[in-house]
Amino acid sequence: MHEWMAELYPICRSITGNGVRETLGLIKRQIPLTVHEVATGTQVFDWTVPKEWNIRDAFVKNPQGERVIDFQKSNLHVLNYSVPVQARISLDELKAHLFTLPEQPSWIPYRTSYYEERWGFCLTHEQMLGLRDGHYDVCIDASLEDGHLTYAECYLKGETADEVLMSRHVCHPSLANDNLSGVTLLTFLARYLSAVPLRYSYRFLLIPGTIGSITWLSRNETNVGRVKHGLVAACVGDSGRFTYKKSRRGNAEIDRAVIHVLQHGDAPHEVVDFSPYGYDERQFCSPGFDLPVGCLMRTPHGRFPEYHSSADNLNFVQGGALGDSLAHVLAVVEVLEGNRVYVNQNPRCEPQLGKRGLYRMVGGSASSGVDELAMLWMLNLSDGRHTLLDIAERSAQPFSALKTAADALVSHKLLIESHVGAFVDPAVSRH
Amino acid sequence: MHEWMAELYPICRSITGNGVRETLGLIKRQIPLTVHEVATGTQVFDWTVPKEWNIRDAFVKNPQGERVIDFQKSNLHVLNYSVPVQARISLDELKAHLFTLPEQPSWIPYRTSYYEERWGFCLTHEQMLGLRDGHYDVCIDASLEDGHLTYAECYLKGETADEVLMSRHVCHPSLANDNLSGVTLLTFLARYLSAVPLRYSYRFLLIPGTIGSITWLSRNETNVGRVKHGLVAACVGDSGRFTYKKSRRGNAEIDRAVIHVLQHGDAPHEVVDFSPYGYDERQFCSPGFDLPVGCLMRTPHGRFPEYHSSADNLNFVQGGALGDSLAHVLAVVEVLEGNRVYVNQNPRCEPQLGKRGLYRMVGGSASSGVDELAMLWMLNLSDGRHTLLDIAERSAQPFSALKTAADALVSHKLLIESHVGAFVDPAVSRH
Amino acid sequence: MHEWMAELYPICRSITGNGVRETLGLIKRQIPLTVHEVATGTQVFDWTVPKEWNIRDAFVKNPQGERVIDFQKSNLHVLNYSVPVQARISLDELKAHLFTLPEQPSWIPYRTSYYEERWGFCLTHEQMLGLRDGHYDVCIDASLEDGHLTYAECYLKGETADEVLMSRHVCHPSLANDNLSGVTLLTFLARYLSAVPLRYSYRFLLIPGTIGSITWLSRNETNVGRVKHGLVAACVGDSGRFTYKKSRRGNAEIDRAVIHVLQHGDAPHEVVDFSPYGYDERQFCSPGFDLPVGCLMRTPHGRFPEYHSSADNLNFVQGGALGDSLAHVLAVVEVLEGNRVYVNQNPRCEPQLGKRGLYRMVGGSASSGVDELAMLWMLNLSDGRHTLLDIAERSAQPFSALKTAADALVSHKLLIESHVGAFVDPAVSRH
Repeated sequence: MHEWMAELYPICRSITGNGVRETLGLIKRQIPLTVHEVATGTQVFDWTVPKEWNIRDAFVKNPQGERVIDFQKSNLHVLNYSVPVQARISLDELKAHLFTLPEQPSWIPYRTSYYEERWGFCLTHEQMLGLRDGHYDVCIDASLEDGHLTYAECYLKGETADEVLMSRHVCHPSLANDNLSGVTLLTFLARYLSAVPLRYSYRFLLIPGTIGSITWLSRNETNVGRVKHGLVAACVGDSGRFTYKKSRRGNAEIDRAVIHVLQHGDAPHEVVDFSPYGYDERQFCSPGFDLPVGCLMRTPHGRFPEYHSSADNLNFVQGGALGDSLAHVLAVVEVLEGNRVYVNQNPRCEPQLGKRGLYRMVGGSASSGVDELAMLWMLNLSDGRHTLLDIAERSAQPFSALKTAADALVSHKLLIESHVGAFVDPAVSRH
Repeated sequence: MHEWMAELYPICRSITGNGVRETLGLIKRQIPLTVHEVATGTQVFDWTVPKEWNIRDAFVKNPQGERVIDFQKSNLHVLNYSVPVQARISLDELKAHLFTLPEQPSWIPYRTSYYEERWGFCLTHEQMLGLRDGHYDVCIDASLEDGHLTYAECYLKGETADEVLMSRHVCHPSLANDNLSGVTLLTFLARYLSAVPLRYSYRFLLIPGTIGSITWLSRNETNVGRVKHGLVAACVGDSGRFTYKKSRRGNAEIDRAVIHVLQHGDAPHEVVDFSPYGYDERQFCSPGFDLPVGCLMRTPHGRFPEYHSSADNLNFVQGGALGDSLAHVLAVVEVLEGNRVYVNQNPRCEPQLGKRGLYRMVGGSASSGVDELAMLWMLNLSDGRHTLLDIAERSAQPFSALKTAADALVSHKLLIESHVGAFVDPAVSRH
Repeated sequence: MHEWMAELYPICRSITGNGVRETLGLIKRQIPLTVHEVATGTQVFDWTVPKEWNIRDAFVKNPQGERVIDFQKSNLHVLNYSVPVQARISLDELKAHLFTLPEQPSWIPYRTSYYEERWGFCLTHEQMLGLRDGHYDVCIDASLEDGHLTYAECYLKGETADEVLMSRHVCHPSLANDNLSGVTLLTFLARYLSAVPLRYSYRFLLIPGTIGSITWLSRNETNVGRVKHGLVAACVGDSGRFTYKKSRRGNAEIDRAVIHVLQHGDAPHEVVDFSPYGYDERQFCSPGFDLPVGCLMRTPHGRFPEYHSSADNLNFVQGGALGDSLAHVLAVVEVLEGNRVYVNQNPRCEPQLGKRGLYRMVGGSASSGVDELAMLWMLNLSDGRHTLLDIAERSAQPFSALKTAADALVSHKLLIESHVGAFVDPAVSRH
């Protein structure tokens, strides 16, 4: 995963333009992808699709004609979405257009100006301190013109039209954890899921941040009712502990599934309540949609010093962390896929498991195998009002052990799967 | 406030009589007040308005003719509501009528006998130990005759007939924290509120304890439905931390408003559940009324050693504590007044705050101002099902910051105030 | 209780057979008992009543003809439900039929094989290590033939047909804590309750484990709706702290009653959630019945090393612990019997307790007697929506103090008992 991510790293992406197209082109080699182009000026709810931005080169030359700030060395050097400029200006005039991180003097900050037309350069604080008085040649060879906003969907059809939405923005230039780690995770997840039978249909969105989710929601307003569960995968490549931010609903099935997986894994983790600041879950969870979409991260945005700087590079993201994040998301998918309602066919007293070979033969021993206990829980709570996840939460047994028990009991006709869905059980919702 | 309170301090008050009238007369110089007189013998629910008690003088003279216990020195010396007496008795006979505090030998206790006709004197334990054998002249020049019970109301009319009830008993003689601190707070609060526009109407009750609230409820039984919120203000002048005792309902808006103010302030505080022992909230919260009335105190009755003794004097109450208590009650009033329901006019995705000048212009920075966050919370939860207080509780933002954000969003037509009121949101009621 | 238990101790019980009959015969001398016999082969839900097992003698003789394992010395030596056998076999062949506890080398384990026909012996590990090579004479003089399963009911008729079910299995041979302590407790409880007036009817079940409760439920399927509360009393004679395992419902009245008694007593205790592993509550709480039946234990099955071994003997059970367990169950019965709904006849404001002699006469003192507070709680919450147990939980007052207060208030016509039952109060259910 890390190797593949490295291919995406050098591209200069933004919320529109060829950087996104090139990135989606590389992803399309891995998974089926439909690329959408939405024209500049299109109204999307309260917003308007902006002009398309493309950049070829940019530099600042000192009085000696040396490129002291050079887009070719790092695409972070340009204020993302800068309007074109070509001028000779004094150092003082130049400084009004420079951004640095004084507290991290060797890192280049990442800055954007999407909705106000301006130009600027980002550089290390050390670089700026080295600039001497004199006139500087400034050049941003960019275009900001009518064009398109580009985003892509990968749709994997399952048994039902009910959808799981997986989303990550794809608008950041050479930044690794934010956002390439999430893009990579979703690409590998989609590749894996495309090869297995699925109950739900899965829709992967690779979109520019904010304006991308707003555009997608605007064009899919009548279809979002199909979204039963959703996850934004963000900053999943650093070595920090997991952070899961719950959906606005707070107790949606996706929330409970992720929490279950985290609680039964051995990785450190934290669960935080929804707040309306963060990634595209802000739009999915706006009150007019209120979709059950949470956000899985390792260290959240803004909580690691490398965030939005040149230090969020390929070294900052670790292959092991990426793989572990993918494994956790797969476990969440397994919970969503397997979260059925079963009905005990023998609800009055326990069935005699022994005569079916499902129970230890010599009684009296104090210890009971975990699997027996999982079967007893499945039988006891499969009254048509509990999903498998309900039972996992109440019993504190791992979902996978209960699923194995359920399969064994189904094969002995002691349980059948209900196709009506679970009745709401207020007693369980308290757990 | 402390200076004004000192004027009320010397008056000998009781549950009836001229002491209450004189006190109400001083209050009437500050705020509009309607004084009510209810005749002795009037039936008020299970109770009967008692005879009116007035006292002119009282003393005990030792065998040498010296006034060893003297009402003129402290009105606490007389068992409050003593029947008149004039007699010469032995020390042993006298002792059956004396009350002291052996554990605080230099303090005079405060004792009453409203509903059993008896007489007695209260004195310091040191005084009692100094009494020598011999015959004592005892005199209580009081009257206990048919008359009236006196109480007062200050009514401030607001936009609606819905009322906030503020109550404090006014029946204690020279005791400062219990009850003059509360009387003073309510007087100053009423004076302040009489000068500002109000959404709710406010009714301040200055009543004798227990029999006063029972009398008021008895005479206003058909009107109490207008009481939407209420507060008993008791013992608010000592230097202890705040104690808020919740209403019987336990999660009434007044409970949540006071708790919010305390949690977002920096004063130490404790919140305790309702119990049917305490002040007039006992009557307001009796099961036949169950009004949403809580009780704000600093150190609760019976928890400070000076309670109901001569040590609860003007030195015990601190002007700073009184003012701080008033500030907290005013903050509660601000929550009640401002607790509206707003409806997001742009509920699908976030509105573009930037084009309205409501958002930082250069993206990419990790930090977001608090006010932006307050706006995002208001937009996200203003779905017609959340009051501003609901949003404050869920977001952990201070009410005032959300109110400021709401005002800004209303002025940009992004929110409008709902006049339907909030739908119940079970998800929020869990917070 | 301990002495009487000692009479039951030597009998060789199993899930069927004369050992159970003999045990029930001894119990019948103490309490009215109806003994039921259910024929082998009877279908009881998913199970079949097994053949009846009876044993007269059993031994293993070493090559010298000495009884090295002897049923006459301890009935635990035989694998319970062993088929008859008479053979001369090698030590190696014998060892395949031997059970020991290597970690407790001087204890005989207790083992059963009800549903697979086999034979075996249990012995101390020390004994087994002493067995020398050679041929052994093996004899189990038992019968496993068509017959009956035996169980008994003691029914105490109360005012209503609503029942409290008390159950304990009676199928273990010479084991004291599991199960004779529970059998003894229920016998003494039934003897006590048979002499007092009762609101509920009480049904005591003395049944073989698992198959007994399944058989009883199968034969009483249409009557179990009468069971309003139930308790399995298990392992109640050791010196460990109490463990209460809640019913599947989790907040049934029996759960709340037991928890109240434990919380207001001074014995250490733990409350655990229902799980489908344990005693006969597994069957009572199967999803098709879901009866409100909990399980009161001291140290739970499998948590004390002596469990299911010869060390669970008469010395292991302590008379004091048994008596204390009985006292706790009696306190639970008192809660169930006394858990009425009262209606305040004077719901608007407090009634004047003083004029009825129910209140301290001299006001102003800081301290209030507990009984006054209990009366105030009863008056405040007796709005027809709170049971006495609801009030006990909310007020944190002991049930017995509230009951005394309720009786006093009823005698003064301030409360009357409601015969409608309590309305559900969501505010209280949160407690």
